[in-house]
Amino acid sequence: MDIKFVNPFLSSILNVLSTMAMIEAKTGKPSIKTDEIAKGDVTGLIGMAGEQTKGTFAITFTEPVILEITKNMLGEEETGINDTITDMVGEITNMVCGGAKKELSENGYKFDMAIPSVVAGKDHIIKHKSKKPIIVVPFTTNTGEFFVEICFED
Amino acid sequence: MDIKFVNPFLSSILNVLSTMAMIEAKTGKPSIKTDEIAKGDVTGLIGMAGEQTKGTFAITFTEPVILEITKNMLGEEETGINDTITDMVGEITNMVCGGAKKELSENGYKFDMAIPSVVAGKDHIIKHKSKKPIIVVPFTTNTGEFFVEICFED
Repeated sequence: MDIKFVNPFLSSILNVLSTMAMIEAKTGKPSIKTDEIAKGDVTGLIGMAGEQTKGTFAITFTEPVILEITKNMLGEEETGINDTITDMVGEITNMVCGGAKKELSENGYKFDMAIPSVVAGKDHIIKHKSKKPIIVVPFTTNTGEFFVEICFED
Repeated sequence: MDIKFVNPFLSSILNVLSTMAMIEAKTGKPSIKTDEIAKGDVTGLIGMAGEQTKGTFAITFTEPVILEITKNMLGEEETGINDTITDMVGEITNMVCGGAKKELSENGYKFDMAIPSVVAGKDHIIKHKSKKPIIVVPFTTNTGEFFVEICFED
């Protein structure tokens, strides 16, 4: 997978969080996903498919981070992973992927987006079933970490 | 969502399980997903996207059912959800969706498939973030139930 597929997602995340939730996240070092298992409390997942390429994008939050984002975006203090939170994760997934799609499309990589799904459950694990490398990027915020996983086959 | 999108998935599941795993599954009554939350131990998810339509397909197994399928397909006795099992779920997701895609394509509904993802974690919950209805279909086998969720926006 070419790194050119990754950067538009990273900038789209920073943009969505800063403009919508007034949260400045710091991008950590991207790595290839190996056997270590990244776990989270709630994950947004979306598939992408086109004639040239197919892929998947996942964004996984721990509870404190997504509660803070939701508080800032909606002005609502939630106390756990509920429908408001999973709706928020679905929206963020859509917005981040939409931003990346726009930038990639301008560079000639066209694909359509599927419907986002949101997974909740303590310490759930996500595995992308591809022969291509899966890029994992951690982010830090004041309330904790979240991470994204990106996989493309071109 | 039109029921015409659902049937090709149902027949593809029965076909994959009977030919690859020698398992005869019985299709239950389809319903619209409401607030009741269906839980499982391992789920395969795949996005679909095209110019006319986008969607998502999920297949969720309880542990005894996927262990039986894996035993029949690979001749291996696994004792829990491990890499062999998640690979198997990814493969089944791909095969079922590929079969449905072929049938839908012959009827003029063309889309591309994303990369399958597999979610593991006790009692995890999947929510598809769409304004369209999500169709849930239960299946029964000798070792227990599994179910699929299908959502399309056209």
